[in-house]
Formats: sequence, structure tokens, C-alpha cells
Amino acid sequence: MENFIHFVLSLSAAVFFGIASIVFVVVWVSHFGEGVAWDAGMAEFNWHPVLVVTGYIFLQGLAIVVYRIPWTWRFNKLTMKFVHAGLHLLAFIFAVIAMAAVFDFHNASAIPNMYSLHSWLGLVALTLFCLQFVLGVGIYLIPVTPASWRAAFMPLHVYSGLLLFGSVIAVALMGFTEELLLGLDNPQYKDSPPEAIFVNVLGFLLVVFGALIVWIATRPAWKRPSDQVLPNLRSDGLRVENSNVGSAMAELSNGADGETWGDVRKRSGNH
Amino acid sequence: MENFIHFVLSLSAAVFFGIASIVFVVVWVSHFGEGVAWDAGMAEFNWHPVLVVTGYIFLQGLAIVVYRIPWTWRFNKLTMKFVHAGLHLLAFIFAVIAMAAVFDFHNASAIPNMYSLHSWLGLVALTLFCLQFVLGVGIYLIPVTPASWRAAFMPLHVYSGLLLFGSVIAVALMGFTEELLLGLDNPQYKDSPPEAIFVNVLGFLLVVFGALIVWIATRPAWKRPSDQVLPNLRSDGLRVENSNVGSAMAELSNGADGETWGDVRKRSGNH
Repeated sequence: MENFIHFVLSLSAAVFFGIASIVFVVVWVSHFGEGVAWDAGMAEFNWHPVLVVTGYIFLQGLAIVVYRIPWTWRFNKLTMKFVHAGLHLLAFIFAVIAMAAVFDFHNASAIPNMYSLHSWLGLVALTLFCLQFVLGVGIYLIPVTPASWRAAFMPLHVYSGLLLFGSVIAVALMGFTEELLLGLDNPQYKDSPPEAIFVNVLGFLLVVFGALIVWIATRPAWKRPSDQVLPNLRSDGLRVENSNVGSAMAELSNGADGETWGDVRKRSGNH
Repeated sequence: MENFIHFVLSLSAAVFFGIASIVFVVVWVSHFGEGVAWDAGMAEFNWHPVLVVTGYIFLQGLAIVVYRIPWTWRFNKLTMKFVHAGLHLLAFIFAVIAMAAVFDFHNASAIPNMYSLHSWLGLVALTLFCLQFVLGVGIYLIPVTPASWRAAFMPLHVYSGLLLFGSVIAVALMGFTEELLLGLDNPQYKDSPPEAIFVNVLGFLLVVFGALIVWIATRPAWKRPSDQVLPNLRSDGLRVENSNVGSAMAELSNGADGETWGDVRKRSGNH
């Protein structure tokens, strides 16, 4: 792997900021709030940020970069597809319970549902996340899908996955804003009590986590070797296409901007 | 250009959603609000969303995709770099005036500054936007920077640019949330008065605009031809590196995941 140290530092930092976010959200609801319970009160509402940060954001982030971890390259691609899909499914389940908690709390407290931009974008993101999951399983895990379909859909799969991941973080930041404006009273949010500062820091941690995950996911040199398309270097110095790359994923324009032949050459030399 | 119709549809949709966002923010402050003025009151505050949506977001979005517009390919790369930098500079000026408006309004109304997550992330994003601009000009517009530095910095320049663009939209959505929770009273935000619905729709328009800009910016096939690295197809079917690509930009791993040789081949065939 090219820039292995750089990769390890990036992944370690992402895990650090992800776990720090989880610690912060747990401290938020337990130290500053009422803890968690399924009681239709604020303690039930508190499941909402806890499950979103822990499951929907942290597990989704891990799911996105799981193919990049060199330790996983010993497993075959199908196994790793199941891990990728399984982590996303877990994230989805956390998200659905998180939504149930907030609807239940609203209904018990006679607070309207679905009035805020946070709720609108959150519900659209969850619906599209579900669609992305169903399409991903249908196209990449069910063996009957033709390779040409898999290839054609991959740029959209990668783009949508990263867009949804970023959107979920943005929606969470809007949720923190709502909760601090509605929940803090005497002192209010504008008086900057410790809880306000603490949750602002939590927002920052989540943004850094998201930025690191997107950075890791979009470095071409850090892709799983079977997903990289490697040219062979012939003895006369001309490069020819390596035709035995295997996986359908490898046929794909797998993401955003292109890499140059210089990069491919460097990578080829390192393997 | 590959998929020209798809490109035109994507760009038209982006421009449509961008202009719709501008119309919505102007109607918000003029029909639902007090209009705009520099009077230290709400009409001065109103410059904040108007300038952010019009300049900081819409112009920044155009600046990001300006290299992709085929009509601009008749101009040399240096001209287009000045257009790219000029649009970003304009976006930055709009953003600075937008910040001045809100600080001036807060100070006149004895509202604390910089207490919210919106304000923290907004100020960090603006500082990093300024840093990105200074580094971009220093590295890509000042002719003394070695080509190797330009190449090494390009993946970070592209990543940071898209990350900052997405962050500014996320910060704007948090700002809408704040303004609707603090500004609407009797009926409140939770009662869904017309202004609440209207601004929620504005939030949606901005998200779609952002998603389209990122989509356009991350399609390798839509890059300016001088930024694409084209292999020549030899008569014996082997590909050799095209060494006369020119611009330093073309040496770069210019963005996210790699494209396959199949893509390069297709593109090569189309030119």
C-alpha cells in the first residue's frame, strides 16, 4: 500500500474522532440530560442522538472504509461485501429505532412531527439510505446481476453513499442546533452554558470524523488491490492492461476524479 | 465530451436549483421579513442569508464546475484559473459582508456573538476557505511554484474545495434552523406557518444544488480535455502514455477514486 503510514494515521484519527463523538453524546444525555429509557419522556428522546451518532454515523463511516483496511485483504471480496452491507444494515436499524424514539416522544408530549427542516432532510436521507441499501444488495450481492450493470451503477453507488453519509452528519448538526435552542432555558443557548459548549464540541468532532472518512474513501491508492486496475509493465517499457483483475468492482469507474497514469505506475511498482 | 446530454442536463439542473435558491432567499427576506438595509436591525441581518446563498454558495458552486463547461475550453487554462479564482474571491467577499452584517446586528441588539455551533463551524469554514484561496493562488497562479508541488497539492486542493462547499451548505441549513426557531413566534416553527414551510423548501433546494455541483465536479469524463490524461491507442492495440498533455494539472491525481482503463479508452476514442 502506498503511503501506508499516512493511511494508518488517517484511519486512527477517524476512529479516535468517531469514538470521541460517541463518548460525548453519551455524556451529553447522561451527565447533562436524563439518561436513556423507553418511557415516552425525554429519556426516550435521548435514544435519538445516541443511536444516530453511534450507529447511523459511526457504523456507516466504518462500513464505507472497511474495504480499505489492509488486514481485510486476506478475505475474499464477497466476504467483505457482506461486512460492508452488514454494517450498513446495522446502521439502518440504529437509525430506524432512533426515529421511532423521537416519534414516540413527540406523540406522548403532543409535539408535532415532521415540521422542521431537520426532520424533512432526515426522513429523505433515511429513505434514500434504504433505497441505496436495497439497490446495493440487489446489484452487488445477488449473483444474477450482469457485470455491465454492476459497472454502470458503481459511480452512482459511491457518489450516493458519500453524499448520504455527509447529509446524515449535516442533519445531525441541525438536530443539535434544534435541541440546544429548544432544550436550554435559563441559561439559554445564547448564554453559552457548559452543555452548549459541550454539544458544540460534539458537532465539531462529528465533522472531523466525517471529513476523515471521506478523505480515506476517496484516495485511489488506498483501494483494495483487487479493486485497483493495474497495468503490467512490459520489459520494453510499454504498459498493457492487466486483464486478470477479477472482481466486477475492478471494471468500474469507482468514484470521482480520475487518477493519472503516473499514479497507476507508482502503485504497480509497489505491489 | 462523453455523455454530453447528461452533462447539459446536470448543469442546467444545478443552475436551476441555484437560481431557485436565490429567488427563495430573496422572497424570504422581502415577503416574510423586513427586506434589506444597513440599519443595524433585522433588515441588516437579512443581508446574511441573502449574501451567503447568492455569493458564498451559488458563486462558489459555479467556481467549482467552471472548468467543466465545454464552451470555456476555447480559452487557455490560465484564463480559466483566473475565472475560477475570481469567482471564489467574489464568493469570499460576499461571505465576509454577510458575516459583518450579522456581527453588526448582534452588537446593536446586545445578542452574544459566536455562541452557536452554526457560528463556530461557519467561522472555521470561512477561515479555511480563505486559507484554501491563498494556497490555491500561491501554488497554481504564481508561476514560480514547482510543478511537483502543484501535483502533490492537487488532491488536497480538490478534496478541501468540495469539503468546504458541502460544509458551507450544512452551516446554512443550521442557520435556517436557528432563524426559524428564534424568529418565528405565534405561530412558532412547530406550528408550520407558511414561512416555515417556505424556508424548509429553500433548504431542500440548496441541498439539491450542492449535490448536483459535487456530481458534476466528480465525473472524470467531464474534465476539461487538457486536464485529462489520454493514452494513445497504438495500431497494435497497446496503449502508450500521451506525453504531450501540457498543463501541470494533467499530471495530477485530481480527486477521488480512480477511473479504469476502460474509461480512459472510451474517452480517448471520443476525442
